Amino acid sequence: MCPKRVVIRRSEISSGDRPVMLAVCGDSASGKTTLTRGLVQALGEERLASMCVDDYHRYDREERRALPFTPLNPACNYLGIMEQHLQLLALGEPVLKPVYSHRHGTLERPVLFQPRECLVVEGLFPLYTPRSRACFDLRVFLDPPEAVRRAWKVRRDTRDRGYTEEQVLADLDKREPEAAAFIRPQRRWADIVVRFDHIEVRHEPESSPLSATVMLRPTAPHPDLTRVLNDDTRETIHLKLTRDGDGKPVDALHIHAYASRETTRRVEEAIWEELGIGDDLPACLGLIEPGLRSEPLAVVQLLLLYHLLLERRGDESLADVGT
Amino acid sequence: MCPKRVVIRRSEISSGDRPVMLAVCGDSASGKTTLTRGLVQALGEERLASMCVDDYHRYDREERRALPFTPLNPACNYLGIMEQHLQLLALGEPVLKPVYSHRHGTLERPVLFQPRECLVVEGLFPLYTPRSRACFDLRVFLDPPEAVRRAWKVRRDTRDRGYTEEQVLADLDKREPEAAAFIRPQRRWADIVVRFDHIEVRHEPESSPLSATVMLRPTAPHPDLTRVLNDDTRETIHLKLTRDGDGKPVDALHIHAYASRETTRRVEEAIWEELGIGDDLPACLGLIEPGLRSEPLAVVQLLLLYHLLLERRGDESLADVGT
Repeated sequence: MCPKRVVIRRSEISSGDRPVMLAVCGDSASGKTTLTRGLVQALGEERLASMCVDDYHRYDREERRALPFTPLNPACNYLGIMEQHLQLLALGEPVLKPVYSHRHGTLERPVLFQPRECLVVEGLFPLYTPRSRACFDLRVFLDPPEAVRRAWKVRRDTRDRGYTEEQVLADLDKREPEAAAFIRPQRRWADIVVRFDHIEVRHEPESSPLSATVMLRPTAPHPDLTRVLNDDTRETIHLKLTRDGDGKPVDALHIHAYASRETTRRVEEAIWEELGIGDDLPACLGLIEPGLRSEPLAVVQLLLLYHLLLERRGDESLADVGT
Repeated sequence: MCPKRVVIRRSEISSGDRPVMLAVCGDSASGKTTLTRGLVQALGEERLASMCVDDYHRYDREERRALPFTPLNPACNYLGIMEQHLQLLALGEPVLKPVYSHRHGTLERPVLFQPRECLVVEGLFPLYTPRSRACFDLRVFLDPPEAVRRAWKVRRDTRDRGYTEEQVLADLDKREPEAAAFIRPQRRWADIVVRFDHIEVRHEPESSPLSATVMLRPTAPHPDLTRVLNDDTRETIHLKLTRDGDGKPVDALHIHAYASRETTRRVEEAIWEELGIGDDLPACLGLIEPGLRSEPLAVVQLLLLYHLLLERRGDESLADVGT
């Protein structure tokens, strides 16, 4: 006898206008924007809106000079207002979102922000408070090793934000105590923890593309990858039952950077098929910048799309399940 | 037999942290800020917060030049966000309030705004939508004759906002169709309509102080003025049962500018005593600017204080009523 499958459909608990909400949390330069950009491109801005909750800074750069904390301190942010806005967005309501200019270090006039069918919320603090966490259908934490993140931050801030390498490194050191105290502890609240890293055992050179380890915690309905992954794919992508740093059971999905495009493509299509969407697999996944692709990034983005679309599909095709 | 008095106490329907909310609605330069200032001074900023919902402008002055409407058009304002923020404030929640600089005509960084025990919300549109109106315990509309308002606006905008008289008059003409279409119709939603004006029958010179006519609609629990007003006071202040412009019954309270300080003071103290607060009557009421007092303004402010404190008193001293 097969137990009756019980599915709580979104349409039973919402007006249908409520967005599916995904949190992408992580320290500065941990890859949040790159990850999010591919999701927006895959679904289109009409279907997926994204916002950065670092806009909820309480002080501008000038004011912070006189203050004893960095933006990584909760006291430096309007976290109560962030919670309030996330709750409103989760109900499908628009908000007047504050705007922080990273380029000028100033707080600007706010903008009207409307949720779409899906909403990705990235930033330093989306998983910090219980009321904030409760707004999300799926919670992701980006957890690159510090060496990788420091290299990314130096590259971005010297190229895009007008800093020297020495300034960026000094800033990283200044922020470290608050990153340890306030940002990294949010890892424990994630359904998915993503770590892009070199695989040390292979002694890869620093410049080689990064592999990914994706911790799939049993707190979210991940796709059944045992049907997708087999002996043919295990050289490039495999799932391993293990324990997380906190001793709790978790599925660790390893996606190797040297995976062939063909093998990962096969895995991606199998995950996509699980969704039963019918459309072709989005071609824009895995793009780091124009001309530079990462297959591990593509697989991570696909997993997140799977969750976004699974939640959304609950509105429609699951309407006859469990009756 | 006396019917049992039923009082719904605020403490039964709220956490006790919800502010008493007063709307002061009216066109530009209709006296909103002067009226509100006396209330803030009387109760103190710790007890009474005030905000202006004209900060919810959607466009800055530069952007409006290319648009076919003035700030008096609902389309020129984030009225949905205004509603949302009023609802949150009515529940005792803080909001991140937008800021419009009248001096520079620009939209600035928003500020954290916390409600206090009482909250006065002044502006062009606080009574425009049903959801907004529903947030208030008392609704006031300022309704000076156009000649009076135009003189006030010329005086303020040439003195404080850097315009010439010609510019102000041209602006008034440009705004008139939208004032008629969107601002003045809000008068119908007020519990109290205040008109400061010269009393024509007395042929007063233009420079003489203004009298006030206060329409007390039976939609709010006004103080029982029949016990306060008598033959001794009728030369300076009297109540008249009449019909409003829409034909509906209303009490019209007339307060004459030539009332002696002693007579109005007696009336003010009687109203104050009705409240049973115990403290002395606030001395700062009626102040138009340093050195210039208006007894009619003082009486109007006192009436509003009466309502604010009556609502608040419901938390405490009515706790044993109706049991």
